[in-house]
Amino acid sequence: MTLEEKAAQLGSVNADRLLEDGEIDDDAVEEWLGEGIGHFTRLGGEGGLSPSEAARVTDELQSYLREETRLGVPAIPHEECLSGYMGPEATTFPQMLGMASAWNPDLLETVTGTIRGELEGIGTVHALSPVLDVARDLRWGRVEETFGEDPYMVARMACAYVSGLQGDGRDDGITATLKHFVGHGATDGGKNRSSLNVGPRELREVHLFPYEATISEANAESVMNAYHDIDGVPCASSEWLLTDVLRGEFGFDGTVVSDYYSVRHLVTEHNTANTKLEAAVQALEAGIDVELPYTEYYGEHLVEAVESGELAEETLDESVRRVLREKFRKGVFDEWSVDEDAAADAFHTEGARSVARDAARESMTLLKNDDDLLPLEADSVAVIGPKADDRKELMGDYAYAAHYPEEEYESDAITPLAALESRDGVSVNYEQGCTISGPSTDGLDAAADAAVESDVALAFVGARSAVDFSDVDADKAERPSVPTSGEGCDVTDLGLPGVQSELVDRLLETDTPVVVVLVSGKPHAIPEIAEQAPAILAAWLPGDEGGSAIADVLFGEYNPGGKLPVSLPKSVGQLPVYYNRKENTANKTYVYTDSDPVYPFGHGLSYTEFEYDDLSLSAESVTPLGTVTASVTVTNVGERAGDEVVQLYTRATNPSQARPVTELRGFERVSLEPGESKRVSFELSATQLAYHDLEMTLTVEEGPYEVQIGRSSTDVVATAELEVTGTKRVPKTARTYFTETDVEPEAE
Amino acid sequence: MTLEEKAAQLGSVNADRLLEDGEIDDDAVEEWLGEGIGHFTRLGGEGGLSPSEAARVTDELQSYLREETRLGVPAIPHEECLSGYMGPEATTFPQMLGMASAWNPDLLETVTGTIRGELEGIGTVHALSPVLDVARDLRWGRVEETFGEDPYMVARMACAYVSGLQGDGRDDGITATLKHFVGHGATDGGKNRSSLNVGPRELREVHLFPYEATISEANAESVMNAYHDIDGVPCASSEWLLTDVLRGEFGFDGTVVSDYYSVRHLVTEHNTANTKLEAAVQALEAGIDVELPYTEYYGEHLVEAVESGELAEETLDESVRRVLREKFRKGVFDEWSVDEDAAADAFHTEGARSVARDAARESMTLLKNDDDLLPLEADSVAVIGPKADDRKELMGDYAYAAHYPEEEYESDAITPLAALESRDGVSVNYEQGCTISGPSTDGLDAAADAAVESDVALAFVGARSAVDFSDVDADKAERPSVPTSGEGCDVTDLGLPGVQSELVDRLLETDTPVVVVLVSGKPHAIPEIAEQAPAILAAWLPGDEGGSAIADVLFGEYNPGGKLPVSLPKSVGQLPVYYNRKENTANKTYVYTDSDPVYPFGHGLSYTEFEYDDLSLSAESVTPLGTVTASVTVTNVGERAGDEVVQLYTRATNPSQARPVTELRGFERVSLEPGESKRVSFELSATQLAYHDLEMTLTVEEGPYEVQIGRSSTDVVATAELEVTGTKRVPKTARTYFTETDVEPEAE
Repeated sequence: MTLEEKAAQLGSVNADRLLEDGEIDDDAVEEWLGEGIGHFTRLGGEGGLSPSEAARVTDELQSYLREETRLGVPAIPHEECLSGYMGPEATTFPQMLGMASAWNPDLLETVTGTIRGELEGIGTVHALSPVLDVARDLRWGRVEETFGEDPYMVARMACAYVSGLQGDGRDDGITATLKHFVGHGATDGGKNRSSLNVGPRELREVHLFPYEATISEANAESVMNAYHDIDGVPCASSEWLLTDVLRGEFGFDGTVVSDYYSVRHLVTEHNTANTKLEAAVQALEAGIDVELPYTEYYGEHLVEAVESGELAEETLDESVRRVLREKFRKGVFDEWSVDEDAAADAFHTEGARSVARDAARESMTLLKNDDDLLPLEADSVAVIGPKADDRKELMGDYAYAAHYPEEEYESDAITPLAALESRDGVSVNYEQGCTISGPSTDGLDAAADAAVESDVALAFVGARSAVDFSDVDADKAERPSVPTSGEGCDVTDLGLPGVQSELVDRLLETDTPVVVVLVSGKPHAIPEIAEQAPAILAAWLPGDEGGSAIADVLFGEYNPGGKLPVSLPKSVGQLPVYYNRKENTANKTYVYTDSDPVYPFGHGLSYTEFEYDDLSLSAESVTPLGTVTASVTVTNVGERAGDEVVQLYTRATNPSQARPVTELRGFERVSLEPGESKRVSFELSATQLAYHDLEMTLTVEEGPYEVQIGRSSTDVVATAELEVTGTKRVPKTARTYFTETDVEPEAE
Repeated sequence: MTLEEKAAQLGSVNADRLLEDGEIDDDAVEEWLGEGIGHFTRLGGEGGLSPSEAARVTDELQSYLREETRLGVPAIPHEECLSGYMGPEATTFPQMLGMASAWNPDLLETVTGTIRGELEGIGTVHALSPVLDVARDLRWGRVEETFGEDPYMVARMACAYVSGLQGDGRDDGITATLKHFVGHGATDGGKNRSSLNVGPRELREVHLFPYEATISEANAESVMNAYHDIDGVPCASSEWLLTDVLRGEFGFDGTVVSDYYSVRHLVTEHNTANTKLEAAVQALEAGIDVELPYTEYYGEHLVEAVESGELAEETLDESVRRVLREKFRKGVFDEWSVDEDAAADAFHTEGARSVARDAARESMTLLKNDDDLLPLEADSVAVIGPKADDRKELMGDYAYAAHYPEEEYESDAITPLAALESRDGVSVNYEQGCTISGPSTDGLDAAADAAVESDVALAFVGARSAVDFSDVDADKAERPSVPTSGEGCDVTDLGLPGVQSELVDRLLETDTPVVVVLVSGKPHAIPEIAEQAPAILAAWLPGDEGGSAIADVLFGEYNPGGKLPVSLPKSVGQLPVYYNRKENTANKTYVYTDSDPVYPFGHGLSYTEFEYDDLSLSAESVTPLGTVTASVTVTNVGERAGDEVVQLYTRATNPSQARPVTELRGFERVSLEPGESKRVSFELSATQLAYHDLEMTLTVEEGPYEVQIGRSSTDVVATAELEVTGTKRVPKTARTYFTETDVEPEAE
């Protein structure tokens, strides 16, 4: 390979440069792909191609590379697919914070296995998800993309996501990309790309843990660097992070791809490089193999750097080897073509819709239900709010349907209004009331009137997620739907946008009972509504089948079992409120409020009741590399079938350092018929209790621990004391990341 | 010395245990002081003794120790004295955030030299100030006690504070205590005692820098640990922090005293110790020499620990040696007695009041002055607001007068109302309007009426600082003056408390021009008032002479020259807004706002205008251990004499890591007659440009830097390029902390 050909393998190009009116631009292809290329990207997303068109274009571009370039090396076609392939006709599943609320990794694996089917249909082999950021600052718009605030939860869900997407083997399926390496969920001010300021222990135990676990347990094949700097060192130029830790310590052997334009940011934002060449050398030497989304700083500048002696050719070669290895693994060298006719059939199958409905249902999280207002037994409902009848408002960022006008993708997503109207025996009284973010209160009277005329009022409220590309330049103060969630949509206030709180207040002033349905990727701070509304359902951004799932829950055809993956604060000024703070942070109060959230991590109600009995440990003590099994019986003592998430936490009661007040160590969502009992057993490894000592060595510490079973992070129903009998450094090979869980039926 | 006698030297007792109705309780004295003692404390503060009484009791206690104990070792009497001795009859100076606003270290040294005189009058030899915390989270109640958000400013002011208090030599004056070691101004959620989460580079360059500088440049003799943990390690048990860094790296050779009860917190809050003995051993081994305020965990538990072999006696001995060394230095072994009759004369001298007035005047910071509304030329003024006529409302936390009912200390502080009423030719129309924090709006009409009837309305608003010990248990919702500033008074909202914003709005609705006078230690987020009010004066918590100083400024007898030591944000949700963020943090926006503060660090107006000319560098390049002089001419081009603070900043334009957008490197407050020019020269050492490389070695880096002269951190009026010609590790001995400044008159 020539230097130019090598450098080309580390570059990429976005579909927008290769296509003109949906057709391949031959000149552009020659310019960008003439020496070969690492990735080409987002035919559906930015290109707007239908699945058949995307399949055809993929095939043509790969054929060009195979046949018209000297070496004949095809590209890695990559796409975004967080809650579904980001292109027309995709099935859209719940946004990830909703998926996390289901506390069901198997379900998520089914979801991403389904996404994989659609991606494979168009010849994609690499996807830029999942998001492993631990959501510690709720101002950040991308919190909806995460699995919440807890590193164990993030790791478990990320593994499931990767397993579904990549399939069983390493040489199969779609390459998953873990991002954003590392700590994007805790940056200063909750702003996208701003600095991360954490200590080394917090960095490892909170932010790096999900990466280490997912690489170890799910063989994730790609990692994307984060935009920000950590304590001054940009992730994009951190050899310590991208090479020493990622490859050296975690054993990662896949490719590192740059977050879009993050090599450029070394010049334009971090100022550590003066030229494209300097930035390219910094990034490549640190460990970024592929520049996305365009060959802009890599390419010719890498060639020049090698020729001038500023970059060792072996460094370039190593990254090229990694990219080629991924290509071999993904089979793009094989006599392989994308079937244009079959592509459309891979999309929007009945099976996919069924999975979407299961996922939406399981994500539903019932926060409050005074006097068993839900499930409804109403003859008439007032359906109110800007989230009730807009398909786009059900979608998360990076869902195609969230960004483009509906006419471009022929949505058949079901809105809550449509689902409710399709029910027999219920009359529906719809008033939008207000827009998402507009200032007008003109519709509030009509909304209140509709409530008064109905047995119950359903208020569908929440934040708009993701930039509408057709609407982005209009005046924010007047726009009906300004996004306050999604990438680049960070906020200084966590309330409901626009006049939606006023709308809810007006409904609450009537005598009609109000159910507040939060259709929002944003964890809102709405303490007054939490106080005053009799029932609150967090529906998150539930995707194509969201309306059906909401209606199923409201009318009791599905019994909700979701639990919060984030703590909901009282105000933005109360942040952070994540549950696993240390005692001195968790217990300190402000002048007019304490530090407790409105609803804690792990909270969620059901239409039935569960009781816990007989927590037992298999032993009272455990060796530092040993295991112990904690078992508890959970019984549905109510009248309906339902799901309960049994949550295992531990607390170090006399650690050598200040530790979190409690830490999630395992969970299991179990379905129980009325009267049914199950015995849930968690096999906890003592190495899971380890933390980093003063020398930053991961160590299991001798001493007392408390094993806790909780309905939530704060509602602990049973505890047992466990003694670790020695102190021992944890060898990498002995480390256990996840608790094995076993569920057995129990005789009554 | 017996083990018991040694342990006794590391203990302490607060006056409340030794006194009964102001008289010495002999049994208590024998119990607490029988074996000797390290410190006894706060005769004036908690004991409530007058200066004469405090002097007498100090003398009696020291006599007891000299004459009645086996070894005859007197104690170290210590007191709080942040803005003045915390006892009856003290002169109260502006709270420290106000002192920082004066940007005048010499003035601060005069202030603390004056405080020293009062403390010496009662036999105190050790004081628990200054506060070196860098205020990065404005929710924290103690921000008022700090010198603001910038590490250079904090270091400069702390040096001045220490120099004034300790006097010229090491064996003289009052021992100053640097606190809270380290990083209390940036804890999670802005809460007192919650965890600190920063990276090692930020920890050193922002939070540790002021300690290193003050130990090196002002020979500070004592340090107090902070309450919180840093990345899990409690400061109270961190040997790395209290010994390796503090003594090993910084060369500190004084005593480390515990923040009150922080040894106890190892058991009750951090959980790293199970018993008093364990906590005592952890704290002593880490490096805390003296337990404050009571011998509770040290004392007998240290004895037991040595006897059982859990503590090396040499560790105990080393701390005892340090305490005894301080006692020798402070002269308490000498034939020394406190003169009861002279004590009162040391207090509240005319000289002290004059210093207090100078300090209050120089702290006045004019934030806005549209159409030269100020200075006033009014015949009648409406004096409005809960800060206008309450002496207590002029005082900061740790000022005696802030905590106790006025009848206990016979205040002669001058309120703004009193000062304005004493002026000839101005009729004053006073209406309180509302209380500090109460909900009643009943007085707003009368306030608006008073404004309408006057030429100008003066709105005195702000937060109450410090807990009123007589009022602490009443219902907050109804109390007239709930503190939302001061220790333990952390807030989730940065607006004005109670209905004060409504009060200002009502005044702004009249046709009368409104001057908003912020009498507050809290940096408030009041963007609407900043937008609408024509004039705003930040008067901080100005102390005894605050009313006079405010009146002087309002009527032009004094031309204000203060500058903000903190950036004032638009809302709590916008935090952090400190000026020296990195570019990626400073430039990112939120959906509905940018990241800029309302008023930036360094901002402040004058009644005259200044022009800057002829910035020149003595050289275009500098060696890594060399110096360069930046000179600029500043001219008063207006009609009045006034002060300008010339500010020197630098920016690394191509660093190896992401660096702050700009960093304060020097400043000089200069007084200029109309038409007068002065040439201000800053001798900058290249070592001041150093930062910590990837191996955490402090290094001056080769490359381009920008030298900036600013009216504020964002209003840069002149720049020059400076090239550092090499990269070099900074040897401790070569390190320069502060820029030498020279001011020369310049011919017109």
